[in-house]
Amino acid sequence: MFGATTLIVKIIGSIGAVAAGLDLGKEGPLVHIGSCIASLLGQGGPDNHRIKWQWLRYFNNDRDRRDLITCGSSSGVCAAFRAPVGGVLFSLEEVATWWRSALLWRTFFSTAIVVVVLRAFIEICNSGKCGLFGTGGLIMFDVSNVPVRYHVMDIIPVTLIGIIGGILGGLYNHILHKVLRLYNLINQKGKMHKLLLALSVSVFTSVCQYCLPFLADCKACDPSFPETCPTNGRSGNFKQFNCPNGHYNDLATLLLTTNDDAVRNIFSSNTPTEFQPSSILIFFILYCILGLITFGIAVPSGLFLPIILMGSAYGRLLGMAMGSYTNIDQGLYAVLGAASLMAGSMRMTVSLCVIFLELTNNLLLLPITMIVLLIAKTVGDSFNPSIYEIILELKGLPFLDAHPEPWMRTLTVGELVDAKPPVITVSGIEKVSRIVDVLRNTTHNGFPVLDEGVVPPSGLANGATELHGLILRAHLVLALKKKWFLQEKRRTEEWEVREKFSWVELAEREGKIEEVAVTSAEMEMYIDLHPLTNTTPYTVIESMSVAKAMVLFRQVGLRHLLVVPKYEAAGVSPVVGILTRQDLRAFNILTAFPHLERSKSGQKH
Amino acid sequence: MFGATTLIVKIIGSIGAVAAGLDLGKEGPLVHIGSCIASLLGQGGPDNHRIKWQWLRYFNNDRDRRDLITCGSSSGVCAAFRAPVGGVLFSLEEVATWWRSALLWRTFFSTAIVVVVLRAFIEICNSGKCGLFGTGGLIMFDVSNVPVRYHVMDIIPVTLIGIIGGILGGLYNHILHKVLRLYNLINQKGKMHKLLLALSVSVFTSVCQYCLPFLADCKACDPSFPETCPTNGRSGNFKQFNCPNGHYNDLATLLLTTNDDAVRNIFSSNTPTEFQPSSILIFFILYCILGLITFGIAVPSGLFLPIILMGSAYGRLLGMAMGSYTNIDQGLYAVLGAASLMAGSMRMTVSLCVIFLELTNNLLLLPITMIVLLIAKTVGDSFNPSIYEIILELKGLPFLDAHPEPWMRTLTVGELVDAKPPVITVSGIEKVSRIVDVLRNTTHNGFPVLDEGVVPPSGLANGATELHGLILRAHLVLALKKKWFLQEKRRTEEWEVREKFSWVELAEREGKIEEVAVTSAEMEMYIDLHPLTNTTPYTVIESMSVAKAMVLFRQVGLRHLLVVPKYEAAGVSPVVGILTRQDLRAFNILTAFPHLERSKSGQKH
Repeated sequence: MFGATTLIVKIIGSIGAVAAGLDLGKEGPLVHIGSCIASLLGQGGPDNHRIKWQWLRYFNNDRDRRDLITCGSSSGVCAAFRAPVGGVLFSLEEVATWWRSALLWRTFFSTAIVVVVLRAFIEICNSGKCGLFGTGGLIMFDVSNVPVRYHVMDIIPVTLIGIIGGILGGLYNHILHKVLRLYNLINQKGKMHKLLLALSVSVFTSVCQYCLPFLADCKACDPSFPETCPTNGRSGNFKQFNCPNGHYNDLATLLLTTNDDAVRNIFSSNTPTEFQPSSILIFFILYCILGLITFGIAVPSGLFLPIILMGSAYGRLLGMAMGSYTNIDQGLYAVLGAASLMAGSMRMTVSLCVIFLELTNNLLLLPITMIVLLIAKTVGDSFNPSIYEIILELKGLPFLDAHPEPWMRTLTVGELVDAKPPVITVSGIEKVSRIVDVLRNTTHNGFPVLDEGVVPPSGLANGATELHGLILRAHLVLALKKKWFLQEKRRTEEWEVREKFSWVELAEREGKIEEVAVTSAEMEMYIDLHPLTNTTPYTVIESMSVAKAMVLFRQVGLRHLLVVPKYEAAGVSPVVGILTRQDLRAFNILTAFPHLERSKSGQKH
Repeated sequence: MFGATTLIVKIIGSIGAVAAGLDLGKEGPLVHIGSCIASLLGQGGPDNHRIKWQWLRYFNNDRDRRDLITCGSSSGVCAAFRAPVGGVLFSLEEVATWWRSALLWRTFFSTAIVVVVLRAFIEICNSGKCGLFGTGGLIMFDVSNVPVRYHVMDIIPVTLIGIIGGILGGLYNHILHKVLRLYNLINQKGKMHKLLLALSVSVFTSVCQYCLPFLADCKACDPSFPETCPTNGRSGNFKQFNCPNGHYNDLATLLLTTNDDAVRNIFSSNTPTEFQPSSILIFFILYCILGLITFGIAVPSGLFLPIILMGSAYGRLLGMAMGSYTNIDQGLYAVLGAASLMAGSMRMTVSLCVIFLELTNNLLLLPITMIVLLIAKTVGDSFNPSIYEIILELKGLPFLDAHPEPWMRTLTVGELVDAKPPVITVSGIEKVSRIVDVLRNTTHNGFPVLDEGVVPPSGLANGATELHGLILRAHLVLALKKKWFLQEKRRTEEWEVREKFSWVELAEREGKIEEVAVTSAEMEMYIDLHPLTNTTPYTVIESMSVAKAMVLFRQVGLRHLLVVPKYEAAGVSPVVGILTRQDLRAFNILTAFPHLERSKSGQKH
């Protein structure tokens, strides 16, 4: 998922897809590329290419890897939109399932580096050394030259933008969901089907982009335009296409260009007569269709840009329809339209707000942007979940929902572990044969360690069972690999452990039981698991509700959660069960408890 | 702390203090005012003024009140700096001890409302209906008209600003700490001392502000200045003061004005000759002194503005000293200086970055602002904790540190509860006399509820002790108040409970045992505590480290944490102890375990 091959495929694929003019953004692949690089750095290099830096292996633990991936994804957003603060907030609002203030600092640092590197490249390119890449600054769609004036009356069009944006966003999510399910069926049929699907979408896009401009009327160039008109070169705002001299084709201007330039053209302000409504309408309809059919083909793609394209066209159309009623510029309507559709589909607020601020560099627009975002999100939320949640659910990834479902409050974790196979525990000093047996026959990643017949310090009881902690599969495999065997049942000394295991080895998570060979003599020996056990696992009591256990899981960032009994008596096991991220997914719980699904749908109707 | 009286005192006090020209900001009081209003709304109105709205009482629970206070404080920052996104991030980075994505949405919503209201007032005032308040826009210190150009060579001055800013910030924190401890001693001596201290600081400020401008030389007005020069009116940038016609006194321009205008003047760009270095130096030294002696007197005050004033003067001085080496404007140097000192003292990054972006409206400055903030924070962190942590520690508030101390990893919660008095538990069906006794003789706010002699469903053991849950003091008092008594020991039915207690009553936290009268006949009766018990308390096992328990406490937002035994046997109590926020404060732990303090200081030397 985050390997070196993925990285290379994503880079090449993304360049090809964007260059082909497909209706997709580069931000999705960039986020993925950032995460891949971060993950590879965390592992100390790619597994299969034999270039490993030993010192980087210090980051090879769960927590640091997760942090690195969060940093990588925020750097990706930052690189895609040149929006450093927006990138930090994006990873805060969407990527990270848990959050610490140290992480905020780290993502901020990484996006700062990205911006400085970007700035340096822009500096070099502006001196004319990069050919066609030579233009552009730190702000992608600058609308700061528009004087923003609005009055109380403008609240009506602004509310309207928000409401329609929310409805369109919800509709987009709904239809995209259906399309993606269809595509999943097609893609599963084989590589040939995948290729054909991608090819046909690509051909359709190209045909539409080339042929549709013939539908538009030619417009005469206005000498007040700031740029040359018409243009025939590779770049330029007013494409001549099929028009006579002194005229330009406004639809060709939008379609026969990169996606970024198309957005820039639609956002262009103080140009109320540049586009005809019919051209913008054709553009809007085309990109609605392309936006629905392009995402999901076997090509690295991002969702931001398609939605911005759709939204800006819709916003500009609405601005045209408002005519003289409003005194907000059409370019700003396009910005607001893009923001509303983004919020209506993706349901982010703060990060979108900052990304739009950094994209457009117009701080005075902030109050209305905030209102539009809030209205669109609220309207969209009343229809369906966000596009990210829909995609995550389709892919079946164990991403824990931020909001527990209502029925989770009445289900206890005790009931949940009862529905699972009984928990497999190991003793503090365990026979090698049993460990090999457990590792071969289960796929669990953590096992509770119990000590029987101990005397608690209070001295009241004897023969108590002690929950010593949790041991990881990787550590059991490591102990087998290192032949950490004892002839007799005894507790080991600290120096023995320190001699045998380095902490870098303990941080690794890669051992496989199949790679371990144990002789039959060794099978009769013992292993002292105490020094390798995590004695401070997070626990919940069996009467805890699933909803609260989920909050704990998410907030503290867990992989295993031990369930302890609420009863205290001889003969009761000190651990009732063990829960993982997969166990707490709503879908998996509903499979085990079908009556909850019924009561849930019963409430709805 | 968040009452109606505090609210009124803060409003009047803050207006008076800012109007008197004291070196303090209005953002601190505004944050407090926002929190007060939020807290009062959450309670349904002030306690003692008999205006309670019943419907607002639905918010009267821990979680909603905390959320409301977070919203209130972000609204305060937003109102102070007209920085909505900065306000949200401020409360994310500094105020909230725990964070949920729903909270992000809510704070964003509240700051959006603040901005819209602000915008409406600005609209009204710009039409000239508010007298002196009639000027100003949504951006406080606009420097967007400066073309930002920087090259690789500028990395040296930028790094320098950051490093010096970090050192100055750390120094400021250190000295302010000493001053605050001195002030605490003075303030404790009585009201007269408090008043005298405030008065003398106030007189010193006024004398300095009036007399120091006489030290500065008069400067001739330059006809290229955009504003009238010299000015004698109430507002205006070039004060004539003691100078002949056609001249102005640059120090008077800075000192005889509001703090906001002083910042605006120092930030003013494209005016390299407006101020003399000596004037800025005098201003810097004066505000260093004032910044240290003003905060801590008995006046509502904020820290942002004093630090911005100091920092901007230092930045502008540095810019002047750089002379022709750099091509960054002096006004931008002032902005960067302010940012570096803020980061050096307060140690925030993302929220400061956004606040500065929203204050100055110069997006192109963002990359260097980020570098300066990161350097200054790193340098400052190597000296001492942030100014907020210093103040919180001085006030002894139970604010849990985000970063557990290293020695907390080796201490277990079991050891921590052993050092406390033994935990007081109640039975599921308890005698009234015992409850009254417990409530009168302890101040605890939560009690574990145990049931003895139950049979677990596994049927293995009988006579087990069950940890049923945790009951709150307020609920015990409520049960006594409502005379929820039973003649015999029996479990109650659900309808009985529902008839007796409404959930609004259960959400209240206000009952006092002194207000309850119980007859001696009632003393012999029983109460069934089961329906009032929270059966899903968060628990940790006794071998858990204090550091990890703290993470749990902070991330999930707890008030009580039950410690359960790791041993399972007859005769062991199913609850070992109970931990509160106060128990987990580093200071309180060190008092109970003095040897940890020694080992801690032992490591240092």
